[in-house]
Amino acid sequence: MNPPAPQRWERLARRSLAVTRILELTLTGFRHPVRRTEREFVVIEAPDWVNVVALTPDRQLVLVNQFRYGSNEFSLEVPGGVVERGEDPVVAGVRELEEETGFVGGPPVRLGTVRPNPAMQNNHCHLVLVPDARPTAALEWDPDEEFEILTLPVEEAYARAYRGEITHAMALDALLLFRPHWERIRSQA
Amino acid sequence: MNPPAPQRWERLARRSLAVTRILELTLTGFRHPVRRTEREFVVIEAPDWVNVVALTPDRQLVLVNQFRYGSNEFSLEVPGGVVERGEDPVVAGVRELEEETGFVGGPPVRLGTVRPNPAMQNNHCHLVLVPDARPTAALEWDPDEEFEILTLPVEEAYARAYRGEITHAMALDALLLFRPHWERIRSQA
Repeated sequence: MNPPAPQRWERLARRSLAVTRILELTLTGFRHPVRRTEREFVVIEAPDWVNVVALTPDRQLVLVNQFRYGSNEFSLEVPGGVVERGEDPVVAGVRELEEETGFVGGPPVRLGTVRPNPAMQNNHCHLVLVPDARPTAALEWDPDEEFEILTLPVEEAYARAYRGEITHAMALDALLLFRPHWERIRSQA
Repeated sequence: MNPPAPQRWERLARRSLAVTRILELTLTGFRHPVRRTEREFVVIEAPDWVNVVALTPDRQLVLVNQFRYGSNEFSLEVPGGVVERGEDPVVAGVRELEEETGFVGGPPVRLGTVRPNPAMQNNHCHLVLVPDARPTAALEWDPDEEFEILTLPVEEAYARAYRGEITHAMALDALLLFRPHWERIRSQA
């Protein structure tokens, strides 16, 4: 059924179209190794991100509801943010959880790493589980941040996702990759 | 525990930083309704996207492996693409599935709609289930597209996702939102 296997294009020079505080928009050249055709594709260069599944001792997930400028809507999500340059993604996740929600727990566990958009972004989003999360720390919000912080039983969080009430792509990824961990935790009753 | 509820910012004017074939990069103004502060945030304006869970009569999922320019890597994904202006997202999903893989099935079912990145993108990604998918149509690839087409038993696809072998954020969303449908299908033996 299949035609010849897809090829890895060779990456050529990039040229910057715009630089912003949170990303750089480029046109990056690629050359097909067989056809030798050269094309420029849009590539957004951005730092890695992290999203955190925080599980409380009574088996609830810590969620944040916030206004999002891209979607121009409120969005119910897991906590998360930008991994600082040189920062370990797990450390970044623990930090973002604490800053946004005041919850502290551990020890943290890597759930996985996803590509927010491999077609046009060069960055990763790391997903971290923080078990035994408890509200202990003071909130440290960035100047333009405001969150509603809530906890939901794990199965209720999945139900909300299935009902379309959690729509943030990477928050949903976090729920997917948390699933096998949750099955194991739940079976330990 | 919670401070005052987060506010909906009022959207103001936008200014374009760059226009490309697949997106427009803007700085969009927002005003906080209480603090009255005004800020500009990066907003990427893009058309909606669609990703498709195609289930074969023998309960395998149709996946594509392709080189991705953003990540500069191969990526194992569900089929998908851009929803054309005015096109119904479900119709777009059926079309993309057929063009990329030659699989045709139905009737299609909406799995849900997610926000690829509500922090900085204004678009949606629609997720569609195409049951009873069979390889019947000719492939119609865009000039720069090449795919390896494969089918995997559903549980093997989830296992690959959990092992980090499927990393595309919205392909993983599709697997998450397909889960309750799959539980129902599977229970019908």
